[in-house]
Amino acid sequence: MSLYESYAEEIAQAIASGVLRPGERLPSVREAHARRKISPATVFKAYYLLEARGLVRAAPRTGFYVNARSARGRMAEPPASRPASGRHAVDANDLVYAILHSLKLRSAVPLGSAFPDPALFPLDDLRQALGRSLRKFDPWNTLDDMPPGHEGLRRQILKRYLAQGTAVGRDEIVLTNGAMPALNLCLEAVTRRGDSVIVESPCFYVALQALQRLGLNAIEVATDSREGVDLGRLAGLLERKRPAACWLMPTFQNPLGALMPSEKKRELVKLLARHEVPLIEDDVYGELFHGSEAPVPAKHFDQRGLVLHCSSFSKCLAPGYRVGWAAAGRFAGEVERLKLMTLLSASVPAQAAVSAYLHDAPYDAHLRRLRRALASQMASMVEAVQCNFPAGTRVSRPHGGYFAWLELPPGVDALRLFETAFADHVSLGPGPMFSVRKEFGNCIRLNAGQVWTPAVEHAIAMLGRRVRSETTRRTA
Amino acid sequence: MSLYESYAEEIAQAIASGVLRPGERLPSVREAHARRKISPATVFKAYYLLEARGLVRAAPRTGFYVNARSARGRMAEPPASRPASGRHAVDANDLVYAILHSLKLRSAVPLGSAFPDPALFPLDDLRQALGRSLRKFDPWNTLDDMPPGHEGLRRQILKRYLAQGTAVGRDEIVLTNGAMPALNLCLEAVTRRGDSVIVESPCFYVALQALQRLGLNAIEVATDSREGVDLGRLAGLLERKRPAACWLMPTFQNPLGALMPSEKKRELVKLLARHEVPLIEDDVYGELFHGSEAPVPAKHFDQRGLVLHCSSFSKCLAPGYRVGWAAAGRFAGEVERLKLMTLLSASVPAQAAVSAYLHDAPYDAHLRRLRRALASQMASMVEAVQCNFPAGTRVSRPHGGYFAWLELPPGVDALRLFETAFADHVSLGPGPMFSVRKEFGNCIRLNAGQVWTPAVEHAIAMLGRRVRSETTRRTA
Repeated sequence: MSLYESYAEEIAQAIASGVLRPGERLPSVREAHARRKISPATVFKAYYLLEARGLVRAAPRTGFYVNARSARGRMAEPPASRPASGRHAVDANDLVYAILHSLKLRSAVPLGSAFPDPALFPLDDLRQALGRSLRKFDPWNTLDDMPPGHEGLRRQILKRYLAQGTAVGRDEIVLTNGAMPALNLCLEAVTRRGDSVIVESPCFYVALQALQRLGLNAIEVATDSREGVDLGRLAGLLERKRPAACWLMPTFQNPLGALMPSEKKRELVKLLARHEVPLIEDDVYGELFHGSEAPVPAKHFDQRGLVLHCSSFSKCLAPGYRVGWAAAGRFAGEVERLKLMTLLSASVPAQAAVSAYLHDAPYDAHLRRLRRALASQMASMVEAVQCNFPAGTRVSRPHGGYFAWLELPPGVDALRLFETAFADHVSLGPGPMFSVRKEFGNCIRLNAGQVWTPAVEHAIAMLGRRVRSETTRRTA
Repeated sequence: MSLYESYAEEIAQAIASGVLRPGERLPSVREAHARRKISPATVFKAYYLLEARGLVRAAPRTGFYVNARSARGRMAEPPASRPASGRHAVDANDLVYAILHSLKLRSAVPLGSAFPDPALFPLDDLRQALGRSLRKFDPWNTLDDMPPGHEGLRRQILKRYLAQGTAVGRDEIVLTNGAMPALNLCLEAVTRRGDSVIVESPCFYVALQALQRLGLNAIEVATDSREGVDLGRLAGLLERKRPAACWLMPTFQNPLGALMPSEKKRELVKLLARHEVPLIEDDVYGELFHGSEAPVPAKHFDQRGLVLHCSSFSKCLAPGYRVGWAAAGRFAGEVERLKLMTLLSASVPAQAAVSAYLHDAPYDAHLRRLRRALASQMASMVEAVQCNFPAGTRVSRPHGGYFAWLELPPGVDALRLFETAFADHVSLGPGPMFSVRKEFGNCIRLNAGQVWTPAVEHAIAMLGRRVRSETTRRTA
């Protein structure tokens, strides 16, 4: 245990034993340094760790404070899902579109948003990178950098795979305008109309939309909010259902926030290889881990070129720039062809800007700040849920990303909650939008990507009150 | 007839009668002004008109010169195509990909390219527009400007429709990352797997790729290089084949360069409305007319919302930025939904840059320069073809865009010509890539979008020699 970890542990025990009470200030950096001879950097590291664990929170310019704890102690986490077996045609659209449409209202507190707070991104640095890259822009690049895509950016992406120790070939990278097109092209490359595809339960609605568009059937697999897909059940489905592909998010799954441990990812890849089933790995949140350990993607364990790893810069660096990619393994040629005939290429200036930023700017420092902000916001949100929601509520505790998944007491209708909350200018992601058969009717996804403000805190308190009164009414 | 037109006519007659001979200089602006009291602006307008007609060419800083004429006089234009009837599954890919791949060689003279010379675009002005737009950028726009797309850009596009007198509703516009995604989404919105779609013969290979990808059958309709699709035959096909849609380029068709006259466009729209068949109108070259009259799109005559008009800024302003749109009539909702689930949005900075450019910069002045350059390059190319290719060659004379279509003497193999020319670092578009059944085996498409240089002139002379020797060998 390093010095900062042991100091953090000491403080954590002081909180647990009540020596430090909710609302009290932690020893300041200066005090800790003066009394204990711990360097300011070490104190900060310790406090950030505690913040990531949800035990304390930073108040700008005044210090760190012990978080309030809910009166009833720690809420349970949601149980693993138990989807009915069978393959299902997908028809998720109308609900999802209605909800997505409503989320565009700027005046609402966007707890239903799929995006982090735009204030968390280095948009000025990106603008400067864009300016630099365009000043030395060769006009011919407007053509050369269409397929296969900006050379410098490909190199930057490959360098990050290299640093992670994930073997990805130069020709595997297909640059796209965001992860969503990458995922769609990969799915199209490995399936034919009428095939079945395994998805998580609950799963990201974009996967359902893609299946519907391509005339594919969905097979849902049991998934829990801690470690993701149940490999035993997955093995059974692979055996019995002969799916054409799996579309999974092993790292900080949307909406659950589940992180499949590395060893389990290795097993997953082995299992799929045994059945020769390609894995479309949606990994847009991989950089957003809250702790100190960077997770590796399932792609890390792929030796057969069966994993199509898709990611982007939209959630960690450059929202709206629409720059993403697939590392598509043995399917890269087909994915590139599909891209050439539908998209042609991502925006060349946007690619150049991200490439220049990655080359010159302190991306890792930005990522550290972003991770810390998300960890702290998530801790505050989970804490606020514990304080405001009634008994019987369960809440996930993700170690990365910015989605908390709540199972509300039985009988609470998430779609009705969505509607009444939205009338009060608070949005949320109702559970049924994440499911083929619109299950999870008493679940909601909350976005912890927003900078923590009184407005967000009040929004959660309001949701808690509504759920509480709904529960009381039902049991009365 | 205005003053500049009558002065141009006077010079044209002097050339026709041999008073002015090939290579001779036209009266300078100063001379014309001194002797005839014609203003310099009027003289320039007259000379540019003659340049657009291919009669003269400008030499930087020295004046205008009479063009050489081919010894045999004016070459014939290619006849209208006569495709076999029937619907055909499409399998065009391998040839097209091999050819597109080869076109990426920077050292080759790109007569096979689909793009104009990047030097023709105001990339510096665009860069400045981008800088301006990002300096006043609200971070929330990164989210707001995803679907439905950048508000300012939508307005700029609508203003251009308005100026043209084409009625397009605000909600019809779906912003995309280039015309190609717009066309693909529109096709997907109006068809189901197994449907048939009418395309031109020859047609743009992207239409064939899109049909193949969506499992659609192609029905080819007779098309000529002057006025486009044969409406009589089209009427017959609509009656007998019950297609789900038409995908046509009524304005400066790729590869023929054909321009359907306005009255014929009106008839086309009426005919399709009678059969309730949607028209996907690919109109990326509409701004690139060579004369003084701006053509209107078929969309101009659409009263039923059946025309899905697709265009972009890629060929007339901002190559590589990937900003395009569909004005999708009654199908706009479905196209927007498909976009939301596959692309999400075009790059926000790229949209903002184009919007800022259109708002602040002299777009119309740029377009006038670009049109003049393309007209002059096209005239030089047609002239060079007339001088260098053997008897029996036919060449189209487009009034816009930058593609010339050549029918070579019978027996000349365009695919072999492509290969041997490419070995000499000259590319071209072989006819079979524009046809479902790889017809047009003795036709080629040449790109006149390159700035006219000795290298381009030599490339055409080399092609002419090859065709000539091939023809001689065959007839010997």
